[in-house]
Amino acid sequence: MKDGSLLIALPDWCREVAAPGEAFESMEARMGLAIRLARENVLCCSGGPFGAAVFEQASGRLVGVGVNLVQRLRNSVLHAETVAVMFAQARVGAYTLNAPGLPAHEIHTSCEPCAMCLGALLWAGVRRIVCAASREDAARIGFEEGPVFPASLDYLRSRGVEIVRGVMAEPAREVLDLYVRRGGLVYNG
Amino acid sequence: MKDGSLLIALPDWCREVAAPGEAFESMEARMGLAIRLARENVLCCSGGPFGAAVFEQASGRLVGVGVNLVQRLRNSVLHAETVAVMFAQARVGAYTLNAPGLPAHEIHTSCEPCAMCLGALLWAGVRRIVCAASREDAARIGFEEGPVFPASLDYLRSRGVEIVRGVMAEPAREVLDLYVRRGGLVYNG
Repeated sequence: MKDGSLLIALPDWCREVAAPGEAFESMEARMGLAIRLARENVLCCSGGPFGAAVFEQASGRLVGVGVNLVQRLRNSVLHAETVAVMFAQARVGAYTLNAPGLPAHEIHTSCEPCAMCLGALLWAGVRRIVCAASREDAARIGFEEGPVFPASLDYLRSRGVEIVRGVMAEPAREVLDLYVRRGGLVYNG
Repeated sequence: MKDGSLLIALPDWCREVAAPGEAFESMEARMGLAIRLARENVLCCSGGPFGAAVFEQASGRLVGVGVNLVQRLRNSVLHAETVAVMFAQARVGAYTLNAPGLPAHEIHTSCEPCAMCLGALLWAGVRRIVCAASREDAARIGFEEGPVFPASLDYLRSRGVEIVRGVMAEPAREVLDLYVRRGGLVYNG
């Protein structure tokens, strides 16, 4: 922080993983990127074992990526999903990815969103949330997901947000296990 | 966004309202600051009618402030509460305000937190959340609060977070009304 401003920077290695504009056509390619971001974040010691990516839904063009930056930037708001949303919105130049004139957007996340991120994704304007590992997988290694209830998911669905769970859950769980094996910090509020 | 980095800057006028380190002893003084931030944000046309401030609980020393920056910075994550938490954590140099060696912290917000911010405040490590205007007050002027249920508040309480509602609700509601009278943008995801 300096003079009332904060800089949020992605780790340098993110640039080598994927560039905005690149097309990821299949659901597996899109989730593969989210999981790769999570894995690289562990291997590069740049944060928690979580990755996310925002795509244009029809074309699969990448709009923004995010990784967990909580420990690195000492900022509990910077989960993979919030980071991906912030960069995606900066790229399209709008505070909602559902702004008039924009194509539909979706987010792929390597783990089901916590309470903060679920709320953030409602405001983000994504039309679909695709998740790999589950809330229970995160809890198994000690990461709490907060007050997310079945009614929370129903609330988003009632606002037109599709939620798809369990896509490529196994490789996403492997990243969680990798983080534990490497002695990664497990934190909660 | 440039080269994978984002700058989050408070409006310049924030510096004139209060400086970190200044002491706000009473609950009224603390909430008064949160509401003043909300009002100035409306009067200065720098964002939505919401303000928040993080204090050391015992001393009342101000640690960080936040105002809604969604429209100004085109970023749906930047509600008053998330902004206040990010600046407070930057000031203390930790990703939780509940880190060992730190005094207890609390946040005062001019309006009850939305679903995203409620989750964010759980991870932030504040011991107490003090709110002025209610979820219903925000809804009355068209701002949706998202999936926040009585069980959501109970969840935070079960984690040791005290939640106090309705403190100085009337002046906070007046700021919401002021925003509407001035033709402020009401947005949701």
